[in-house]
Amino acid sequence: MSLPPAPPTTADRPSEASPGVTLPAGFRASGVTAGLKPSGKPDMALVVNDGPLQVGTAVFTSNRVVGAPVVWSRQVVSDGVVSAVVLNSGGANVSTGPEGFQDAHRTAEQVGEALGVSAGDVVVCSTGLIGERLPRETLLRGVDLAADALSATGGPDAATAIMTTDTVAKTAHFTVDGDTGVWSVGGMAKGAGMLAPALATMLCVITTDADVDAATAELALREATRLTFDRIDSDGCMSTSDTVVLLVSGASGARPEPAAFTAALESVCADLARQLIADAEGASHDIAVTVENADTQDAGLAVARAVARSNLFKAAIYGNDPNWGRVLAQVGTVPEDVAPFDPELIDVTINGVQVCRAGRAHEPRHLVDLASQREVRVAIDLHAGTEVVTVWTNDLTHAYVEENSAYST
Amino acid sequence: MSLPPAPPTTADRPSEASPGVTLPAGFRASGVTAGLKPSGKPDMALVVNDGPLQVGTAVFTSNRVVGAPVVWSRQVVSDGVVSAVVLNSGGANVSTGPEGFQDAHRTAEQVGEALGVSAGDVVVCSTGLIGERLPRETLLRGVDLAADALSATGGPDAATAIMTTDTVAKTAHFTVDGDTGVWSVGGMAKGAGMLAPALATMLCVITTDADVDAATAELALREATRLTFDRIDSDGCMSTSDTVVLLVSGASGARPEPAAFTAALESVCADLARQLIADAEGASHDIAVTVENADTQDAGLAVARAVARSNLFKAAIYGNDPNWGRVLAQVGTVPEDVAPFDPELIDVTINGVQVCRAGRAHEPRHLVDLASQREVRVAIDLHAGTEVVTVWTNDLTHAYVEENSAYST
Repeated sequence: MSLPPAPPTTADRPSEASPGVTLPAGFRASGVTAGLKPSGKPDMALVVNDGPLQVGTAVFTSNRVVGAPVVWSRQVVSDGVVSAVVLNSGGANVSTGPEGFQDAHRTAEQVGEALGVSAGDVVVCSTGLIGERLPRETLLRGVDLAADALSATGGPDAATAIMTTDTVAKTAHFTVDGDTGVWSVGGMAKGAGMLAPALATMLCVITTDADVDAATAELALREATRLTFDRIDSDGCMSTSDTVVLLVSGASGARPEPAAFTAALESVCADLARQLIADAEGASHDIAVTVENADTQDAGLAVARAVARSNLFKAAIYGNDPNWGRVLAQVGTVPEDVAPFDPELIDVTINGVQVCRAGRAHEPRHLVDLASQREVRVAIDLHAGTEVVTVWTNDLTHAYVEENSAYST
Repeated sequence: MSLPPAPPTTADRPSEASPGVTLPAGFRASGVTAGLKPSGKPDMALVVNDGPLQVGTAVFTSNRVVGAPVVWSRQVVSDGVVSAVVLNSGGANVSTGPEGFQDAHRTAEQVGEALGVSAGDVVVCSTGLIGERLPRETLLRGVDLAADALSATGGPDAATAIMTTDTVAKTAHFTVDGDTGVWSVGGMAKGAGMLAPALATMLCVITTDADVDAATAELALREATRLTFDRIDSDGCMSTSDTVVLLVSGASGARPEPAAFTAALESVCADLARQLIADAEGASHDIAVTVENADTQDAGLAVARAVARSNLFKAAIYGNDPNWGRVLAQVGTVPEDVAPFDPELIDVTINGVQVCRAGRAHEPRHLVDLASQREVRVAIDLHAGTEVVTVWTNDLTHAYVEENSAYST
């Protein structure tokens, strides 16, 4: 399986080998084995902001059913101050009642004690099965181990410890040498949408040594995630635990313009999002659904999402069948008030071959080579405006069904 | 594979053996081999209303991309008069441009000539692949064959000729011996949502010898389909060709109350809908998702649909895993303004075992026996009102992926 190239970054080495969250100055991180996973693999990560700033912000799943860690962490970030993020795999701590919330709270307290910071400034993230409590003693012992292991080069270890069914750790960074000095953004992520067994969660921690205030950081994070993580859609499902945290140390002293900061953040998020899609369990194709010439961004997004969520279309791509009929059928499900377009004007191009022109068969579909390509680019020209939107997804495969049926608990 | 029992009808024999559209007086039907299918199996059906009334109405897919037959047939039913319905498998006649529309128009003309009725009163339905024209001569020769084969006992033949990947022909009827006399409703259907290769279409023809006017017929059909066909959802996809036609002959002379007529119609539609789910290609479980104690019908429907469309949940059921966490995660995706509820009050009961109570694990999931049951009943109690809504779906299986990847063209 050859992975498609990640988006370009200014990194001096491939993003796969990026130091991740410890590239920016002012951060330490670690990844250790607490014993939450039966496999004995690393399952607990810690990322600490040593300042001078301790700005933090986050975006969370919009699911109304959320894990105790999300309930806790929403409170933590509400004042714009975050000192550390503790993350565990091996259990999601969702639907676990008041005791589960106490587990999350107690974990933050343990981190606070170990680091000499307020528990109220510690974000907690958990991923794994829903409906089962985490073993508290194992969790707290893991916190101590992680605190002891903290290092200024611990980014890759932390990225490894949050893996669940991921096959590779995911890190990225972006460095800017600008008017106000050199500053950078680093990040790590795990999970591939909800492709993995038992509701795998998308967790992401991003760090920066740029000097930005809480309001700027929050706006930038919302914009960056809206254009990246919100536009990958493996299977249309939405986790109870998705969390993206941004920590700002300001250690570089550089004060970038908000637009430049947002762009760097977006670059790192796009890189990580692309890595998540490329590592989606059970997928054999990464599919970029691009809607061209939409009336509005929202219209394009609605059409792209509709196609990206079609089981029929995604199963066809698995079968290396450039089935543009299934694309058109999905496009047609979007209501006219959401996306105005004339179905008889639509063109569909798959990996460079215009298989449908003006709503009808055009170039022969056998010209489309899907079998030798992991990456599939589907361009849908609505001829209804000038907006362009891309959503990434995967094909629907036997391995997806296998992962989510045979091996779930 | 043992099929679950169909809903009760007043039929004196099992609905599988129902005469279908020719049970009510005033109708003839046929099913023949025109040669559209490479397999040589029957591929063209004709249903004729010999009156005295020639009332007709229909509901069509809400997809904005529709086949030429749908464009044609919408015009036909607009005046409330329908003399005949001609249906073919072996090609959907979708995305075929003006020539495709001419093919549909010409088919109606051929039926009109053969029967001595107006082409403008002939509904045309096609199902099969998108984007390829039908061979016109084969189509027209098939019309003549079908007209020659018409008989007052041709219902089962017609039901057989519209099958695509269906494994059994689907017919149903409901007879009422009421105050105003004996009257009945008969019906046939094909297709299982969009579970079959290349956009299999749900087509349905219903006949009645009750004496009802066009307005009553239309209202009754909309209500009956809203509560039946609109509540089966195999894979969340929406066809370009779905059509349900109702023909009224009035031959019994009985004039039922609109409510009684609607109830009979709903019974036949429910029976056929249940048969469609039971025969969904690639499915190993039929799943009834029932939302209890919803605030409104719309709220319950939104929650039921969200669960019925979750690939993760449906793959878990395939694996005989009563994964209530995946149910809760889907329930939580419904916005609060659509369905008000408190996630911490939700109970989930699967085949009689309350695996989740008040948003937390309750009875052990191993008590749920799914492996020996084709039918799975998931009850989600929102504790937010008194409305109850059921949506039927299927599990997501290896066979589904296989059907829709390996064998598509």
